[in-house]
Amino acid sequence: MTFREKFTPAAEKNNSWLCLGLDLDPEKVPEKFRKNTKGLLEFCGMVVEATKDLVSAYKPNIAFFEALGAEGLELLGKTMALIPSGIPVILDAKRGDIGNTSAKYAKAAFEGFGADAVTVNPYMGSDCVEPFLSYKDKFVFLLVLTSNKGAADFEQLRTADGESVYMKVAAKIKEWNRFGNLGAVIGATKAADLGKIRELLRDEIFLVPGLGTQGGDLDASVKNCFLYNGLGTFNVARDILYAGPSAEDIRAKAVQYRDLLNRSLKGS
Amino acid sequence: MTFREKFTPAAEKNNSWLCLGLDLDPEKVPEKFRKNTKGLLEFCGMVVEATKDLVSAYKPNIAFFEALGAEGLELLGKTMALIPSGIPVILDAKRGDIGNTSAKYAKAAFEGFGADAVTVNPYMGSDCVEPFLSYKDKFVFLLVLTSNKGAADFEQLRTADGESVYMKVAAKIKEWNRFGNLGAVIGATKAADLGKIRELLRDEIFLVPGLGTQGGDLDASVKNCFLYNGLGTFNVARDILYAGPSAEDIRAKAVQYRDLLNRSLKGS
Repeated sequence: MTFREKFTPAAEKNNSWLCLGLDLDPEKVPEKFRKNTKGLLEFCGMVVEATKDLVSAYKPNIAFFEALGAEGLELLGKTMALIPSGIPVILDAKRGDIGNTSAKYAKAAFEGFGADAVTVNPYMGSDCVEPFLSYKDKFVFLLVLTSNKGAADFEQLRTADGESVYMKVAAKIKEWNRFGNLGAVIGATKAADLGKIRELLRDEIFLVPGLGTQGGDLDASVKNCFLYNGLGTFNVARDILYAGPSAEDIRAKAVQYRDLLNRSLKGS
Repeated sequence: MTFREKFTPAAEKNNSWLCLGLDLDPEKVPEKFRKNTKGLLEFCGMVVEATKDLVSAYKPNIAFFEALGAEGLELLGKTMALIPSGIPVILDAKRGDIGNTSAKYAKAAFEGFGADAVTVNPYMGSDCVEPFLSYKDKFVFLLVLTSNKGAADFEQLRTADGESVYMKVAAKIKEWNRFGNLGAVIGATKAADLGKIRELLRDEIFLVPGLGTQGGDLDASVKNCFLYNGLGTFNVARDILYAGPSAEDIRAKAVQYRDLLNRSLKGS
């Protein structure tokens, strides 16, 4: 089953375009959970249980697990195993290296962790992305225009032909997407640019971070993402994960975001 | 002790500007080693023992260890522990994410693995690099111009002012390097560009991959790297690691590269 074949039914079944970012930070986990592997896994289990009918995807960010050492990566594997098989898992890893090395990263993400999709950094170009794309049933979200302020440094640089670096990345997505398994990461903080990228990439799935704590523009980014019957999944992490000590708190915040997204979508 | 305080004496003591890349690939490890964690650690131990007086740094690429799962990351930790404390370890990870997430990657690299330096991908800009730089005794090698052909896709794009993306990254290194702990990755396959970047970044340490299997230009890249009394460490991985079944084979190939680098340096 391809990522798309998993993602669309999950989104439709749960009536949700929300992606829940699993940014596991022991310092923010409610006090009632012990800060060891067992306690953190219980917390992750509670989160998944409380939200599995409310999301279109989960997106664990591997950085948070790496920071806990080899045990943290075991915890990531166990957390991913708790996610119902019908809901796609996007491993947010922002990997990328020369070909033979990217192949190792792809193996780790897709075979080792069994992720359905992975985020990849485009800086090093085609041969850094190819080994990921060769897993045709898997999916790659390539960073195009990120939600942070540092996006201005290089992503938004003007190129000699009057375009910008991130539009060049978007154009390469169109060129490289021969298996239909390549999408784009575009921050909700850049809603107008998101629309411009959608003009070019009409069939590609977008992963849109930057709502919630980062303060992106929900209405405009939803509207622009879903133009031309495009699809996207909107990530919120901290704002939901650490909404309160109980499963109900987390569930309530996830419901709130799901509904906000759906209202924006109906209004657009 | 800062990275620089460790690197320069190591290079001088071993009379070497060679960096040995630890790209551990079980399929290429000599047959006499079992392909389990224990056997692979024995291989890594043999490599370090055979080369520790011949190198200025070691550079394990984390991708190869990630591909072996959580056990692989334990193996990485154990391999790094075998490296004499006087020789700096550059963890080649090409990480980078928004600020709070990059902080987790920095913690994993510097506190978890105890690396002296880490490679970072610049695409997402300043706030993606800052959390790494805040470890003032550690060191960051920022990707500027990589050795692979995909470098042409985005790194070498012309910018509106007639420059190129990679020169913009180089310029930001100059701006961001207020603690003296930021260097650059520039491929030996781009020797002329390396010289142009050295014109701008005269005090920064360069990490130069792309010799050996990738076929970079040794003479020209050494000459350009060491202009203005600049320093650099030249990475070779596969060509040395898998030179043959015995410690002597590995040592002989490392000696050969060390000497080639020294001859280029004297000739320049």
